[in-house]
Amino acid sequence: MNKPAAIRHALSVTREADFAAWYQEVIAEAEMAEESGVRGCMVIKPWGYGIWERIQTLMDAQIKAAGVDNCYFPLFIPLSFFEKEAKHVEGFAKEMAVVTHHRLIGDGKGGLVPDPEAKLEEPLVVRPTSETVIGAAMSRWIQSWRDLPMLTNQWANVVRWEMRTRMFLRTSEFLWQEGHTAHADRADAMEETLRALEMYRAFAEGPLAMPVVAGEKPENERFPGAVATYSIEAMMQDGKALQAGTSHYLGTAFAEAAGIRYQDREGQQTLCHTTSWGVSTRMIGGVIMTHGDDDGLRVPPAIAPQQVVILPMLRENDEDAALLAYCEELRAALAKQTALGEPLRVLLDKRAGKATQKRWAWVKKGVPLILEIGGRDAGNGQVSVLRRDRLWRDDGKVNFAGETREGFVARAAVELADIQQSLHREATERRDAQIIRGITTMAQLEAVFAEDQKYPGWVELGWSRPTGAALDAVVTTLKTLKLTIRNTPIGAPAPSGSCLFTGDLAVETIYIARSY
Amino acid sequence: MNKPAAIRHALSVTREADFAAWYQEVIAEAEMAEESGVRGCMVIKPWGYGIWERIQTLMDAQIKAAGVDNCYFPLFIPLSFFEKEAKHVEGFAKEMAVVTHHRLIGDGKGGLVPDPEAKLEEPLVVRPTSETVIGAAMSRWIQSWRDLPMLTNQWANVVRWEMRTRMFLRTSEFLWQEGHTAHADRADAMEETLRALEMYRAFAEGPLAMPVVAGEKPENERFPGAVATYSIEAMMQDGKALQAGTSHYLGTAFAEAAGIRYQDREGQQTLCHTTSWGVSTRMIGGVIMTHGDDDGLRVPPAIAPQQVVILPMLRENDEDAALLAYCEELRAALAKQTALGEPLRVLLDKRAGKATQKRWAWVKKGVPLILEIGGRDAGNGQVSVLRRDRLWRDDGKVNFAGETREGFVARAAVELADIQQSLHREATERRDAQIIRGITTMAQLEAVFAEDQKYPGWVELGWSRPTGAALDAVVTTLKTLKLTIRNTPIGAPAPSGSCLFTGDLAVETIYIARSY
Repeated sequence: MNKPAAIRHALSVTREADFAAWYQEVIAEAEMAEESGVRGCMVIKPWGYGIWERIQTLMDAQIKAAGVDNCYFPLFIPLSFFEKEAKHVEGFAKEMAVVTHHRLIGDGKGGLVPDPEAKLEEPLVVRPTSETVIGAAMSRWIQSWRDLPMLTNQWANVVRWEMRTRMFLRTSEFLWQEGHTAHADRADAMEETLRALEMYRAFAEGPLAMPVVAGEKPENERFPGAVATYSIEAMMQDGKALQAGTSHYLGTAFAEAAGIRYQDREGQQTLCHTTSWGVSTRMIGGVIMTHGDDDGLRVPPAIAPQQVVILPMLRENDEDAALLAYCEELRAALAKQTALGEPLRVLLDKRAGKATQKRWAWVKKGVPLILEIGGRDAGNGQVSVLRRDRLWRDDGKVNFAGETREGFVARAAVELADIQQSLHREATERRDAQIIRGITTMAQLEAVFAEDQKYPGWVELGWSRPTGAALDAVVTTLKTLKLTIRNTPIGAPAPSGSCLFTGDLAVETIYIARSY
Repeated sequence: MNKPAAIRHALSVTREADFAAWYQEVIAEAEMAEESGVRGCMVIKPWGYGIWERIQTLMDAQIKAAGVDNCYFPLFIPLSFFEKEAKHVEGFAKEMAVVTHHRLIGDGKGGLVPDPEAKLEEPLVVRPTSETVIGAAMSRWIQSWRDLPMLTNQWANVVRWEMRTRMFLRTSEFLWQEGHTAHADRADAMEETLRALEMYRAFAEGPLAMPVVAGEKPENERFPGAVATYSIEAMMQDGKALQAGTSHYLGTAFAEAAGIRYQDREGQQTLCHTTSWGVSTRMIGGVIMTHGDDDGLRVPPAIAPQQVVILPMLRENDEDAALLAYCEELRAALAKQTALGEPLRVLLDKRAGKATQKRWAWVKKGVPLILEIGGRDAGNGQVSVLRRDRLWRDDGKVNFAGETREGFVARAAVELADIQQSLHREATERRDAQIIRGITTMAQLEAVFAEDQKYPGWVELGWSRPTGAALDAVVTTLKTLKLTIRNTPIGAPAPSGSCLFTGDLAVETIYIARSY
């Protein structure tokens, strides 16, 4: 955020000036998504959807490699399904889209209304998540211990009616994957819960280049009806936490509600232990707020729909043909390369328009490498290369560097891998610098999150893991400071000292932060 | 359907005995899908969904190669959007799922009801198709002729409330892709409409090995609001037609309703010409009824989730380890092969269970090649190969053939390509044999479709292309015979003679059939 004043950034708002407005501007200027005119629902545009397709492709390969089968379950869930698991209802019963009619009819005035004759006997809920309907399927599919573990996943849209929405982060409809598994016992289900969590952690740190803390959520933040909920938490550039994926051990409560039983090796009917785990288009919001800068998005190469864009500086004269031929050869040579384990993704942008306008459009979209090719470059066998993560020179000029075409083609894959690593390193260093330790009193905690501390980051604390009313008291106290407990990182060393909230011996480490 | 009586088929119902019951049994026994307990919605199980994933992968590559961008648009469409295009409303207003509330609340008796306080001001319709909401987006995105053509597509779920449902063929919720494009003029829009149609035709005949007739639907079968609708029509084994994909030229009516205008090169505001085109999970129903036999499904190798399954004949003794090692080597060698342009998909099925049970499970699923490997095979470097499309020998025995492992690995890709071609040839020959020509009177037409003609097939006719009331009369006449006009094949030679319905000069060829 500390560029020389001379730089004229591509966005009109900087992160420093107004982080929320900056976020919206990145999404608009990178042409990722927009409001649809339908309350709380966004339109995901090609560049945003392309990133989601990359996330799907890579995550789906991981899910399949773990032996999980993709299925598809109904969009609609009968209302009665939600009445079965009491705690689950409490958590979700609030805001859901309810289908009550199956027909429209003319109102006699040229308009349409729901046909009163076509009222459903039982209302249908648009799935907010699919534990109940998948549980019903599993109760049919699972007979014996031989059927276990049963590992299923679906890629789907879900709806949770939201009063305040923000694109990618909180929308009424969103896209996600939801894994649902059933196991013979607690140990096996917990192993799956933690396998999914680790898959998410590695995915965030790998393809998304987004450092995260994987850990257990406190009791009050559990998924409705779950025995244990785990999350990955990422730190955004404004210091807030983003929960970017969750994995739940559901115990036997959902199995009991849905009747998921198996005959064990001794012939006894036994309840299954179930899990669920999911990540969503929210991850894209995390990528924006982790890697975006005052010139727009920066997409990690692993999830960039295009990794290299070639911009011929067309002049609408008869030299254009030779320039395009040169660029096409370059494109073909790059497309044969392997970058980050896949064929390199390269686009030759031949559209009409001024070269500098096109350059800035791609800068704002955050394509990792931009190649501008003029007639002289083509004549000399050169390319002019711009790394999106090193956009500006110290003198405030755009950081293009010339080199031979062959030289660039040969090292393009290495360069992309370096960008991927560099984005991860930059985000990790920033995150680590914004984790505050050594807080021992409430007064200190309050000071960290005082109003004038714009981006305070996270506080790492030891606590006594209170439960029930004692936990509620902590949660209430934190709420007055607009804070939440994010999670207890897995594998963190046991803390020393006493719990800031209860005065008891601290038994585990937690992160406290403002959050999305 | 003419096997020696000695054969005991894997299914309990033959196509001959009860085609509809046979269809349901294939779906159940191949574990493709099942009823969900939610009215009209099915659960797509891993083998069925795996086929859909294959269709998606191959079709999506075609769509992208045509320069079409994937996007994602909202599930919900405000009711008022449907009121804009009058003809479109007429066609679709009947049966749609309508969301009227956004919250559930306890009924005080342990149940849940839609919260009367949370009634939506404007009901939302669960998309039956997305012309209206995508049109609204295009009206924002398109300013100038430079923005044209605008080519978008989405993969999504849609809902059309159906009274009588049948898995894959007609379900209230189904999965599909819908392409939506906007163009500067009629010629460009028609070109796109026909490009999509040809993409579907080639896709059906290629990966699906399903012969189809591509042509224009008659006026009465047009998509609501369209100027012209084209379809691909496949013949099922019971002689009925299945519309397996459609492409619509929408003229300017949708553009006018949504306000999709562009500034042309002369600076004038001009309406766009739009198109839409889609295929759905219905294609899977077509694959079942084209290629299935009395032993279950036969999946064309190009869309088979697994192309080769290796079944080690485990005996739960200490020879199993060597057998598994041999099978794993075989699997690895096959996985390195390229079949039909992609890495060969092979599964080593190590699950517990009797080898013959597992064999028949895979036969019913229709995996193209089954390899059974016993201890003796492993010792001799042999494999025992079963081609699913040549399941039975003339003597009524299962058609296994032994050969060397190396020999099989070397020719596996060729064998798969041959199965793909063979399924297509078989289906084409059957289809062609069931097309009836030379009908010149209504009495002859009635005779073809008389009650005792179980699988009459299609009738090819020349007609005078009546419109309006004259067409309505034809449609009504055909309806009494439970017949519909399928389409006018593109490129068919002009017919001779007069129209059977109107007596006027026949001007084009049509197909008449019973249909799904």
